Amino acid sequence: MSSTVGQVIKCKAAISWESGKPLVIEEVDVAPPKAGEVRLKILFTSLCHTDVYFWDAKGQTPLFPRIFGHEAAGVVESVGAGVTHLQPGDHALPVFTGECGECIHCKTPESNMCELLRINTDRGVMINDGQSRFSKDGKPIYHFLGTSTFSEYTVAHAGCVAKINPAAPLDKVCVLSCGICTGMGATVNVAKPKPGSSIAIFGLGAVGLAAAEGARISGASRIIGIDLVSSRFEEAKNFGVNEFVNPKDHDKPIQQVIAEMTNGGVDRAVECTGSIQAMISAFECVHDGWGLAVLVGVPSKDDAFRTAPINFLNERTLKGTFYGNYKPRTDLPFVVEQYMKGELEVDKFITHTVPFSEINKAFDYMLKGQSIRCVIRMGE
Amino acid sequence: MSSTVGQVIKCKAAISWESGKPLVIEEVDVAPPKAGEVRLKILFTSLCHTDVYFWDAKGQTPLFPRIFGHEAAGVVESVGAGVTHLQPGDHALPVFTGECGECIHCKTPESNMCELLRINTDRGVMINDGQSRFSKDGKPIYHFLGTSTFSEYTVAHAGCVAKINPAAPLDKVCVLSCGICTGMGATVNVAKPKPGSSIAIFGLGAVGLAAAEGARISGASRIIGIDLVSSRFEEAKNFGVNEFVNPKDHDKPIQQVIAEMTNGGVDRAVECTGSIQAMISAFECVHDGWGLAVLVGVPSKDDAFRTAPINFLNERTLKGTFYGNYKPRTDLPFVVEQYMKGELEVDKFITHTVPFSEINKAFDYMLKGQSIRCVIRMGE
Repeated sequence: MSSTVGQVIKCKAAISWESGKPLVIEEVDVAPPKAGEVRLKILFTSLCHTDVYFWDAKGQTPLFPRIFGHEAAGVVESVGAGVTHLQPGDHALPVFTGECGECIHCKTPESNMCELLRINTDRGVMINDGQSRFSKDGKPIYHFLGTSTFSEYTVAHAGCVAKINPAAPLDKVCVLSCGICTGMGATVNVAKPKPGSSIAIFGLGAVGLAAAEGARISGASRIIGIDLVSSRFEEAKNFGVNEFVNPKDHDKPIQQVIAEMTNGGVDRAVECTGSIQAMISAFECVHDGWGLAVLVGVPSKDDAFRTAPINFLNERTLKGTFYGNYKPRTDLPFVVEQYMKGELEVDKFITHTVPFSEINKAFDYMLKGQSIRCVIRMGE
Repeated sequence: MSSTVGQVIKCKAAISWESGKPLVIEEVDVAPPKAGEVRLKILFTSLCHTDVYFWDAKGQTPLFPRIFGHEAAGVVESVGAGVTHLQPGDHALPVFTGECGECIHCKTPESNMCELLRINTDRGVMINDGQSRFSKDGKPIYHFLGTSTFSEYTVAHAGCVAKINPAAPLDKVCVLSCGICTGMGATVNVAKPKPGSSIAIFGLGAVGLAAAEGARISGASRIIGIDLVSSRFEEAKNFGVNEFVNPKDHDKPIQQVIAEMTNGGVDRAVECTGSIQAMISAFECVHDGWGLAVLVGVPSKDDAFRTAPINFLNERTLKGTFYGNYKPRTDLPFVVEQYMKGELEVDKFITHTVPFSEINKAFDYMLKGQSIRCVIRMGE
């Protein structure tokens, strides 16, 4: 047992004091985990668009100072009372959503939307007591998504921590905490393209590329990437994308372009941009009779999905997914195994790495569209 | 072989000369079937809303004179060249849609939307040669849905004729040609409620009651009927409906009422009215995480389905269905067997019967909302 058990840990964290301003690495106090909680030593974390979105705080209630970060891998330092599935030393992935194991969603195999631990972007405190476990000079610093992995130590609800194979390289599997599983699961768990089938992937960012990777793993033969940036196609080829459409190159609605390319429509579509128009196009470009479109990207609050009902009546299906329909604790260990067996290629998503001291560079890479994933090495 | 083979048959048909005017029973000429066609002696037919809708011709291109009718049972009189799956004497159900067996839809088990024989409400002639097989005094009378069963003899494309068990009572199974299969299939083939689950059925006409019957057969335990006419609930109990909601009794949106009744939403919903608002409510009343809504009712052309994308992203699914996803030739014989084994109760749908000479009474019963199905006895 670590000598830090039960003690406040002083460590470095990247604090976001103000929206849109560079993070500042400072020493913070991390309180011990309370009942049902886990304190993790974070070894690797990666930057996801969602961090940037809430750091930028346009359109959301700003909550500062805050410690962002939610894609990460680490080692359990200590556990609070009642935690039985984790113990100090376990290798683990913290996740922005959870699996309490007790609610109606956790008890059905069909849902991963845990009633208790479902994502809550507005909450900056622990569920247990409404308090933060982070403080600086006695003043609380807000949590983010229950993970706050831009800190050398963090506290999470045990239901949001998946124990994984200790042989897995944490500098790689850290990216499975969020974006990669979100995209890949949308394809392999929800769209489920058949071998030899066609699929359209809207948006070739990290999530879309992961959706394409899922299509590649599933054996889809035509993987059509749709993006407004043509230069992304070259990189997307590594993820199985073998045809490319840029809506800017066409005067017609893109769903019509795709229908013409595919003799009436693709078998599956996965929407990873969050643009409401892309959502509508993704649905309308699937084939009648059997086509299925899956929505992943999160749109603006005021957007409305709108289509002619006949598009449904002609036997098309539209589904949404959250975190690729993976149950974090139950399913993540198996995704890690898929990586260990070489079925799922994770390394190619990691285009950059930086030491913790240069975490703001990760933001730059993302804002400039240069990175798919930038992994941050916490020790450095 | 009948002596009528290859000959024009003179017989009685109920001709609709003008929109909304009573049908007139007159003698017509029915030409022999051409290649790939079948001539059927119709013994029983029933009236469906779709007949009334096109007879009324509000909102569609009027096509008169026309012989309506598309729910029916009969016996094959003769077959045209190349027809191999039917022969004279076979008991059969003509269907308003078809199964050519050759197209991409027929070849996948996932679709029943045959490319060649898919429903076409505007066509009044045979696909083969663009001609009608019906005439009176040398002038053509238009077909309806490729079936025109309000005639003692009719000609249909062989792909639209399902051969059934000759032991099945034709005066009962005639209703399986359209509405009953449409509603029941929406539940058993598409919504697939699990035993013990909850399901909301929007609209308690024949199709909605058949959807409820499908839910009863599937073992759903809470079958919630939604209709603007409260008096329908009593009858609906015979079809498994055990809770009733009339939107007129509530100030709140009906999806909210249902969510409150069911701790967050029903497991499944089936929309059988064609009202766009009911479609939206049916989708929004299913539970997040696993809820599935199925659209059956056909809306007005200009209606738009509209909802907040988060309703999808919270893992709800929306599907449309056509003819309950049954492939007419492949699946109808099995539905008839379900009836023969007593699993599917058909008799209770038939509330009225009339002789052919009184066919206009069937229209009255339907227009007054008195009948579920009125069977018309052709010989009388």
